[in-house]
Amino acid sequence: MEKRRLVVVGGEIDGIMAAAAAAKENPELDIKILLSGKFLLLNKYQLAYFIQNVDEDMHSYMSGIGEEIKQHCNVEILPCRRVIDIVSLEKKVVYENLLEGYQSSLEFDKLIIAAGVKSSPPSIEGIQAGNIFFLDSIDDAYSIREGIDAGLIRKAVVVGASPLGIYVAKCLWKRGIDVTMVERGEQILDGFDAGIAQLVKKQMDQKGIKTLVGEKVLSLIGNAEGKVAEVHTPNHILAADMVIWLEDIRPNVDIAKKAGIAVGKAGAVEVDEYMETNIPGIYALGNCIQYINQITGKPIWMYNMFADRRAVRVAGYNTAGDNELVLNKGTTGALSIKAFGLNISKTGLSLAEAVQEGYQAEMATVCINDGKHGSSCRENLVKLIVNKENHRVLGVQSVGGILSEKIVDLMTAVINTGGTIEDLEQLELIGHLPHIADSHPIHIAACMIFDRLTGKTQGISAYELNKIIHDPQIVVVDVRTRPEALMGTLREAVNIPLNELEERKDQLDRQKNIVLVSNRGRRAYTGFIKLRQLGFEHLYILDGGLIAYPY
Amino acid sequence: MEKRRLVVVGGEIDGIMAAAAAAKENPELDIKILLSGKFLLLNKYQLAYFIQNVDEDMHSYMSGIGEEIKQHCNVEILPCRRVIDIVSLEKKVVYENLLEGYQSSLEFDKLIIAAGVKSSPPSIEGIQAGNIFFLDSIDDAYSIREGIDAGLIRKAVVVGASPLGIYVAKCLWKRGIDVTMVERGEQILDGFDAGIAQLVKKQMDQKGIKTLVGEKVLSLIGNAEGKVAEVHTPNHILAADMVIWLEDIRPNVDIAKKAGIAVGKAGAVEVDEYMETNIPGIYALGNCIQYINQITGKPIWMYNMFADRRAVRVAGYNTAGDNELVLNKGTTGALSIKAFGLNISKTGLSLAEAVQEGYQAEMATVCINDGKHGSSCRENLVKLIVNKENHRVLGVQSVGGILSEKIVDLMTAVINTGGTIEDLEQLELIGHLPHIADSHPIHIAACMIFDRLTGKTQGISAYELNKIIHDPQIVVVDVRTRPEALMGTLREAVNIPLNELEERKDQLDRQKNIVLVSNRGRRAYTGFIKLRQLGFEHLYILDGGLIAYPY
Repeated sequence: MEKRRLVVVGGEIDGIMAAAAAAKENPELDIKILLSGKFLLLNKYQLAYFIQNVDEDMHSYMSGIGEEIKQHCNVEILPCRRVIDIVSLEKKVVYENLLEGYQSSLEFDKLIIAAGVKSSPPSIEGIQAGNIFFLDSIDDAYSIREGIDAGLIRKAVVVGASPLGIYVAKCLWKRGIDVTMVERGEQILDGFDAGIAQLVKKQMDQKGIKTLVGEKVLSLIGNAEGKVAEVHTPNHILAADMVIWLEDIRPNVDIAKKAGIAVGKAGAVEVDEYMETNIPGIYALGNCIQYINQITGKPIWMYNMFADRRAVRVAGYNTAGDNELVLNKGTTGALSIKAFGLNISKTGLSLAEAVQEGYQAEMATVCINDGKHGSSCRENLVKLIVNKENHRVLGVQSVGGILSEKIVDLMTAVINTGGTIEDLEQLELIGHLPHIADSHPIHIAACMIFDRLTGKTQGISAYELNKIIHDPQIVVVDVRTRPEALMGTLREAVNIPLNELEERKDQLDRQKNIVLVSNRGRRAYTGFIKLRQLGFEHLYILDGGLIAYPY
Repeated sequence: MEKRRLVVVGGEIDGIMAAAAAAKENPELDIKILLSGKFLLLNKYQLAYFIQNVDEDMHSYMSGIGEEIKQHCNVEILPCRRVIDIVSLEKKVVYENLLEGYQSSLEFDKLIIAAGVKSSPPSIEGIQAGNIFFLDSIDDAYSIREGIDAGLIRKAVVVGASPLGIYVAKCLWKRGIDVTMVERGEQILDGFDAGIAQLVKKQMDQKGIKTLVGEKVLSLIGNAEGKVAEVHTPNHILAADMVIWLEDIRPNVDIAKKAGIAVGKAGAVEVDEYMETNIPGIYALGNCIQYINQITGKPIWMYNMFADRRAVRVAGYNTAGDNELVLNKGTTGALSIKAFGLNISKTGLSLAEAVQEGYQAEMATVCINDGKHGSSCRENLVKLIVNKENHRVLGVQSVGGILSEKIVDLMTAVINTGGTIEDLEQLELIGHLPHIADSHPIHIAACMIFDRLTGKTQGISAYELNKIIHDPQIVVVDVRTRPEALMGTLREAVNIPLNELEERKDQLDRQKNIVLVSNRGRRAYTGFIKLRQLGFEHLYILDGGLIAYPY
């Protein structure tokens, strides 16, 4: 009996891992992996990690992966084979051997495409200059490492302040590089709400990272050696020894399109629950495919560091034999990075995304500390977003210490089963010592949302308040004690300590919108209840409190 | 209209918090809290925390709680009122005012009992001696703090190596105390599987904590001042300046029983989904009540540091008005402590508990590191237990670094919805940088269990292997490289590196049970597949690998 043949093309690590999973399922499988370059394609997050961590040897890391696969079976990894075409009718891959300069082909029973992404930067002046990197390959990481080691790279501009951009900026900053980020969108941290993004921006400001928002790179000016020297935007001229361009990253669908494989609405390869494309026997995974968003039911594509480990096993299993395993849950868009001393995580939709999708959304922000002592104690901001109509959780964003990081997988599990705020309240979440008396932030947030849904309270986000704070119809009341307010409060705020609220109520104009603020919003809540009892109507609590107010 | 009256008795902090929640719901409520002593009852975990953290002022902590409640409404906290009886027909509480020495009563519309626990130590010789503490009150914590500060307490014996006992031992150890633990059961860390317990024991050994297992305290010998000086067990005489007795902790149901309130099979107060007892208008929560175990459906009681934050809101809400909120999910028995550099966590059943409950259980142990560098990098052991018949998750135990801690709430959410291993595989869990290529330990464990359920592999736990390792029918094969094996392996193991397995197969007796071992079990897995292809039948993989082997 002939051995079954599996060919993997595209070179992204998920494809290699799927090959390993296939080998594990069926040791008799004849597996060939075609790499377009000398090495497999690492994720841009991982390349940034290698730039930062100089002790890590990228080659031994990659040969380790290769060795591990080879332990399982006789898989052949063939470098420098550029795929020219996939002839699906004949079940063969046509490729060019770049080492020896000839064209050849390979037949397959099943094929996995893991083509990853490609960068399509605009053709602006100077885009071809030296030291402009798209973080496409291990060669980029080496060049950057060497440039930094040699002291030739001191100033860097990172184009695109997406979560990836921020992670890359952090890795450079850790190497002592002076980093400026240029973001053409209105905020950094695409996919997160504006208030959260602002909080991260503030932290970056403190660490000395400049972030230019709403700025587009117009041109890049080279020096005498042809290397980039300046980055020009409408309002700035930035000196730079290096540019890392992280905008315009798109799924690489070139070879798939050529082969007649369906590309979906999100611009990436479409696969079914077996990870199979519309062409039987051809599978795809990693950053070149699109997913169904679990919440909206719509296809989405996002550049994901975790590119979906679930798909690895499913694609591996199904290409080793028949289609048996399924991946029937889409994505929640879960994401988590650590940068500048913060864990920055999300799962599901942000409030802005929820509104854009037409949901009636309610949200609550909880500000809670890690429960640690001294310098390791960090504030955590947890923002929960739910659908007003059916009470389902739409998403969570969290920024801060370890607590933030812990919440993401938990909430992904909740979203995965269509969980509601009622379900959250039934969840037996364990606390975080030593603050045994504290409630879990998810419970607090759920409770706050209940209060808002039943009309008991009303919140306003930091972002909204900042937009309207100069409106004469807005009165901001800081209900903390006088000493606390003297230590610093919002410039627009009047300080009426909670215990004076009743006697000084006539100082407040009942016709105006009164926003109550305190450190974490607890006293603001009490003030809200008090004023409502006193007949006030237009009341709001600053969501998350002053600690979470980043303006 | 008369104000509605809520009375809270028992003094445990959950009762106080429920009163605060009730006040929040209904500011018109007339709330009185009767404390039997001067202060509210803190959890034993929290008292231990205060013993360790000398900078924390217990009084300001507790008055802070009182202040916070008073902010909401005119709640009265009445100290030194010992409850004598609850006359349910007349809806009144009879109490003795210990300060002024008279008896009085209070009428209520609704009542909350938060009686906590009581210690019922055996009446052995010397149990009444000085410096024997049951960690019942803040006075105990003060006495211990003072004894340590004055240098009078240098050696301590902690009786009972439950999770609570281990937490208490850690707090004393942090204060520089020489701690010995005496546990009458067969292992420390009741509720965890033996292998996990052994791992923790090993860590405690390294930190200098002596743990005597299977030893019962026979008598306590006092010194001239009437303070404890020696602890006698069948095999040891232990010098001690202090004993903390943490065995024989039972729910305090005295007052409930007297009032005719039903006490359930687990020996604690029974409540319904509204947190109401069998007597209408009387509610209970905290450590004096029992829960339904979500997995077994049976009532259980366990001393819980988190005592159930969910119940606080439900009891508060329902006593503020009518029964509206429900707590319809029982407990998973989730628990998490940090001690001796380890996070030790569980949710659901251990394997031993599952077997005892009659489940056909399968398990898998994954050993994975934190992904950190240097000294902060820690190994994490994650043990997943599922029901073979319906594939439902029965429980998880984890020990190690931050990863261990993260998994508990996640898995509680999975158990909460009756999740199966198939559901786990559909969960989009995000990784833990920087090991981007790693799979999530829960995914790995689920996959391992699939392999075992389908007969592809077979595992043996560290605990089982240790029991039978000297059996002549057992052959342990270390499939790591020769240099690795030379660095240390099991004394009983023969080293046959993976790549020599095929050629040296005739050295292995096919009739015997062959246990394959490697660091984390990955190479053992590959060896398993190889030997099976070569016709071997009686093969096992050491679950979790050598790193997780604590013997």
